[in-house]
Amino acid sequence: MPGNTFGQMFRITTAGESHGPGNVVIVDGVPPGLPLSVDDLKPDLARRRPGQSKIVTQRNEADEPEILAGVFEGKTTGTSIAILIRNADQRSRDYADIKDKYRPGHADYTFDAKYGFRDYRGGGRSSARETTARVAAGAIAKKLLGTVGVKIVGYVKQVGELVADVPEPAAITLEQVESNIVRCPDANVAERMIELIERLRSERDSIGGVAELVATGVPAGWGEPVFDKLKADLGKAMFSLPAVLGVEYGAGFDVATLRGSENNDIFVPGNGEVQSPNIKTKTNRHGGMLGGISSGMPIVLRCAIKPTSSLPQDQPTVTRQGEVTTIATKGRHDPCLLPRFVPMGEAMVAMVLADHMLRQRAMLPV
Amino acid sequence: MPGNTFGQMFRITTAGESHGPGNVVIVDGVPPGLPLSVDDLKPDLARRRPGQSKIVTQRNEADEPEILAGVFEGKTTGTSIAILIRNADQRSRDYADIKDKYRPGHADYTFDAKYGFRDYRGGGRSSARETTARVAAGAIAKKLLGTVGVKIVGYVKQVGELVADVPEPAAITLEQVESNIVRCPDANVAERMIELIERLRSERDSIGGVAELVATGVPAGWGEPVFDKLKADLGKAMFSLPAVLGVEYGAGFDVATLRGSENNDIFVPGNGEVQSPNIKTKTNRHGGMLGGISSGMPIVLRCAIKPTSSLPQDQPTVTRQGEVTTIATKGRHDPCLLPRFVPMGEAMVAMVLADHMLRQRAMLPV
Amino acid sequence: MPGNTFGQMFRITTAGESHGPGNVVIVDGVPPGLPLSVDDLKPDLARRRPGQSKIVTQRNEADEPEILAGVFEGKTTGTSIAILIRNADQRSRDYADIKDKYRPGHADYTFDAKYGFRDYRGGGRSSARETTARVAAGAIAKKLLGTVGVKIVGYVKQVGELVADVPEPAAITLEQVESNIVRCPDANVAERMIELIERLRSERDSIGGVAELVATGVPAGWGEPVFDKLKADLGKAMFSLPAVLGVEYGAGFDVATLRGSENNDIFVPGNGEVQSPNIKTKTNRHGGMLGGISSGMPIVLRCAIKPTSSLPQDQPTVTRQGEVTTIATKGRHDPCLLPRFVPMGEAMVAMVLADHMLRQRAMLPV
Amino acid sequence: MPGNTFGQMFRITTAGESHGPGNVVIVDGVPPGLPLSVDDLKPDLARRRPGQSKIVTQRNEADEPEILAGVFEGKTTGTSIAILIRNADQRSRDYADIKDKYRPGHADYTFDAKYGFRDYRGGGRSSARETTARVAAGAIAKKLLGTVGVKIVGYVKQVGELVADVPEPAAITLEQVESNIVRCPDANVAERMIELIERLRSERDSIGGVAELVATGVPAGWGEPVFDKLKADLGKAMFSLPAVLGVEYGAGFDVATLRGSENNDIFVPGNGEVQSPNIKTKTNRHGGMLGGISSGMPIVLRCAIKPTSSLPQDQPTVTRQGEVTTIATKGRHDPCLLPRFVPMGEAMVAMVLADHMLRQRAMLPV
Repeated sequence: MPGNTFGQMFRITTAGESHGPGNVVIVDGVPPGLPLSVDDLKPDLARRRPGQSKIVTQRNEADEPEILAGVFEGKTTGTSIAILIRNADQRSRDYADIKDKYRPGHADYTFDAKYGFRDYRGGGRSSARETTARVAAGAIAKKLLGTVGVKIVGYVKQVGELVADVPEPAAITLEQVESNIVRCPDANVAERMIELIERLRSERDSIGGVAELVATGVPAGWGEPVFDKLKADLGKAMFSLPAVLGVEYGAGFDVATLRGSENNDIFVPGNGEVQSPNIKTKTNRHGGMLGGISSGMPIVLRCAIKPTSSLPQDQPTVTRQGEVTTIATKGRHDPCLLPRFVPMGEAMVAMVLADHMLRQRAMLPV
Repeated sequence: MPGNTFGQMFRITTAGESHGPGNVVIVDGVPPGLPLSVDDLKPDLARRRPGQSKIVTQRNEADEPEILAGVFEGKTTGTSIAILIRNADQRSRDYADIKDKYRPGHADYTFDAKYGFRDYRGGGRSSARETTARVAAGAIAKKLLGTVGVKIVGYVKQVGELVADVPEPAAITLEQVESNIVRCPDANVAERMIELIERLRSERDSIGGVAELVATGVPAGWGEPVFDKLKADLGKAMFSLPAVLGVEYGAGFDVATLRGSENNDIFVPGNGEVQSPNIKTKTNRHGGMLGGISSGMPIVLRCAIKPTSSLPQDQPTVTRQGEVTTIATKGRHDPCLLPRFVPMGEAMVAMVLADHMLRQRAMLPV
Repeated sequence: MPGNTFGQMFRITTAGESHGPGNVVIVDGVPPGLPLSVDDLKPDLARRRPGQSKIVTQRNEADEPEILAGVFEGKTTGTSIAILIRNADQRSRDYADIKDKYRPGHADYTFDAKYGFRDYRGGGRSSARETTARVAAGAIAKKLLGTVGVKIVGYVKQVGELVADVPEPAAITLEQVESNIVRCPDANVAERMIELIERLRSERDSIGGVAELVATGVPAGWGEPVFDKLKADLGKAMFSLPAVLGVEYGAGFDVATLRGSENNDIFVPGNGEVQSPNIKTKTNRHGGMLGGISSGMPIVLRCAIKPTSSLPQDQPTVTRQGEVTTIATKGRHDPCLLPRFVPMGEAMVAMVLADHMLRQRAMLPV
Repeated sequence: MPGNTFGQMFRITTAGESHGPGNVVIVDGVPPGLPLSVDDLKPDLARRRPGQSKIVTQRNEADEPEILAGVFEGKTTGTSIAILIRNADQRSRDYADIKDKYRPGHADYTFDAKYGFRDYRGGGRSSARETTARVAAGAIAKKLLGTVGVKIVGYVKQVGELVADVPEPAAITLEQVESNIVRCPDANVAERMIELIERLRSERDSIGGVAELVATGVPAGWGEPVFDKLKADLGKAMFSLPAVLGVEYGAGFDVATLRGSENNDIFVPGNGEVQSPNIKTKTNRHGGMLGGISSGMPIVLRCAIKPTSSLPQDQPTVTRQGEVTTIATKGRHDPCLLPRFVPMGEAMVAMVLADHMLRQRAMLPV
């Protein structure tokens, strides 16, 4: 069953492996008339790019996008948009190790179990390289959302035990996030995160963390009440990204210990900044969605990201034949996935919201 | 955009409100020849039913399912199955309060913002009553999965600060879960959970918690590597249930503080109990999925459930017109959603797994 | 793979057999606020109903619809609508013949080949009884289309060699169609059609024909340019109905012998009755669609319907075991399917157009 | 609403315009292990290619496919396959005429009505150039079907009044079809068709025709009984191709004048060449499908193709502003679409059958 398509109205379909010719995305459902060029795609691709700083993988990828279809005279035509990002760093390596041994924490074994064989060059289709296609498409979603005032900002909330202090998530700007290489808006903690990541790299190890994503300007009324709740589609979106082991909204797992009288966000009259009916909630423990439908409050979610599985140190494992052995990754990997996760997470949030924006257009009352 | 359908191959479509004639589910994609009768549906419906114990809502619903189509001479025909569960407790009440006031934590306001008006009788389509349809369909999914040895068991892991000790999730049986009314397999903690919930009810309040769900017998190879990762589809499934604010797999949010060398689950030779290649992992921090594909290890996930929003005490809120007022719920509600959540959660897990079981059938190598 | 769902935005899912408890349809994607009651469904169900006249099957079905969900205080809520039509004429018969013998022209053999067994009572899921669900849903689609001025009228164009003279398809009214029991707007030919059908019945035989369907008021711009061309979705819709062996638009198969200079419909200025740009075509050989997108001209299509396969005369066939035998249908069947096909055809046209109406809402320029 | 995706299990998504950088197709759902290289794609692309003979358009396109993803060491991996076919003949022309005038029979006007503007260079997305993507994907579907013995052959049945004599459609071979440039297996009629087309070209006109498509080796049991009938999905597939105004199966429109006793295909014991139950029909007026499900007999369908709308002679039309004018196409167009339609039609038939082959895999009895 095809699993390479995401979304209903704003819908992307992707293909591509880490060491094949390139990654492709077809973006369908973009309304006509949206100004678009490759320059709109480049900033987020650069934020996702390997080699962008000393704390990420040093693999070299230019990530130059080419728009193959769907744009005419600088505007979307309303038909499908295709974007190709060729793989630059496609050099031949010695994959003998990976071919016959299962890397812990990777999809090597599960691919073999599923398909009978796999493209063993650097992960093939299961490589995070496929997220270039998502990030490019997400940039289009962001642009579409921008026409109705929706903004999405993501940042690193936690690395290891280091937790950023972000009292007002909805106030964080892209500039704050991009002011340091770890993408944490709390400057003091950011510095310590960078040190920690550098230390982990020198120790040939890796570390996990938490990313927080915030969408502001979403009007009340997006999302469907049963299966396609906004929180359900966002949940699928985030869990479809590599290494995400947990997702929570608003108060998240803390609700387990709360009483209803503590947890309920009280409705109060709005101050004119929100849509009619001019109502908002005093607090935002609900994370911007009630009954799966946006409430007009900022959408706030967090993703738990596991530490990179690939390690340049010997780890025990088995071969395809089930024999005990060890493996050490020779490739250049991220000691912490968080800094490069931010644009990926933003892209997924943007696509879910763009999808529900268009869906809501169609369901306006007769 | 229609949002009342879930799944690709094993696919359900539902309709129904809390105070309309009833709830309907059409289950599509069930292969022919599966023995099925209403008796297969009743046990899980009884586990979800209001009024089943002293710690759940005392609303009275018989929840008698009728199979309208898709079964012939005791077996599924391969065509669509329809199940109707009529609402018994459909009596006329005084909904004046709910009609004009927004209940905190409910979808009242977001429905009005989305649709322009709403069925204000007890929540309408956003009532958890729609989950009867899911639980009925889930029972069919469980039966289908049973033909290949997959079992799903859910239980209450945490209520408030009370956390059950469950050292081996995959060993928990349905009998253990059903041995007490709170559905917690740790008998000592279960007793204290029941006391806590009773106390909360007497204090006109409610409490949140965490449910854990485990699927055993899933062979390695189910799930798709990119958007339709098993963890992504399970994530959507769980977040599509009311009151779920967080979902995590395996080590979950704890991965944020782990190093790669601590977190990686090491592959070891299997002991013959797993499929060829006879390989398993020593630990299961990955929760049974790698790269979005089942690894053959037990699938373990947890859901954070918020405390019931409806409270029989005065809470501040606003009217549709934006005027400040108070509201106290008069209906009979659950002081804790967890005990009745368990069969709902199991149903959603079952449907996702049944879907991917069928999807994998189609993708076997040529 | 589920095949019981039709449409993207306006989407129906059905279940039901000819001799089970009933037929169900869930209609998803209807915008909120559309006035709706069972009285809106009854007229078309009555036009489809067995026993409505002397020239159709005399089977007795009341076809009383019940709305189970999705309507509140007389209006659609925006959530899924469920309709149940119970089977009245569900009496036990002697199906021994059908059980073991394959009726020519029916799905008996193909069902057995596909599913390994089948519900042999009157065709089960392959009975045209499933079209009650379509007709009920089609009535909702018609009502939705009515809000933007779209009308759909179908009629019998041909029975055997008798061809109606309908110089201006777009001018035919429902009243003209319903003025006689064969549903042919050419009164003279209608009379001869009725005689022919009665003669065929007395001869224990059946006859085929052609239905013509016309949609007026469709604005230019509905339909998608590639796979979801309006003509493609209409084609699927019509061929999904039982007994349809051919579909054609506008000039249809006659285009095979035309030159481009003869066939092209010339654009001319509109007379104010069409939308801006105020343009129409002088002729309508294109049947109201160009490049798969509606042109603002009437949509005109024709379906070739085969003669009823069930015949109350001995026909040679084989048993499940492959032995030669004969079979004569004992049930009460239509000597000509055309009169009852008209509301089915209209329903399918209506659902495709309602779907594309909603799709176009979402794709309006930014 | 996205309309650039076709199929459920075997699913393609396309993008591309006639004068943009190229056309792309992502093929999803191909099982792993199918041998595949660009050489598998080239033969059908060559059959579709402009400039292949004196009776087709003389536009120059190399149509060289590049496989960007989904193939590893010569075999499909089970993940999505991407193919890019760059446009070679992308030179700048004078499109002033097309930009402001509506070509009769083309989508120029309907695109403007739908999208507000359009890519006016040679039709943009509505150009038949998009069918390169379909033909490339169709070649993969053919290869997949070949693994279970299914073959698809199409040919030209009629051009203008010239009708080929093809007594046994299922016996026609690719070699016969390719033995002449008009792709008609009746050599005598083929010669006259070629003369006719050449004459039409010299007269600056065009001519319509009928293509016949035959699939052999399809086992009984493919297709779904209600909406996704094989004839419905094939119907959508064929009508999604440009210029198709009619589709019919088996006896087609001739059924209108037949009696049931004449039209029914009688079941008889098979001769061992068909599957168990060893049954076939004596005749094949039903075109290989009963109740929407394949019967094991050859699938036979015909498409009516309109004469090319673009003519190198003055035709009256209007401008975007509604002013009367004339237009003559300057580009190089086909005087008859039929010869190049054959591979397009085969590709669509192949994709529908591949889709239902995979769907049936998933629905085998438990």
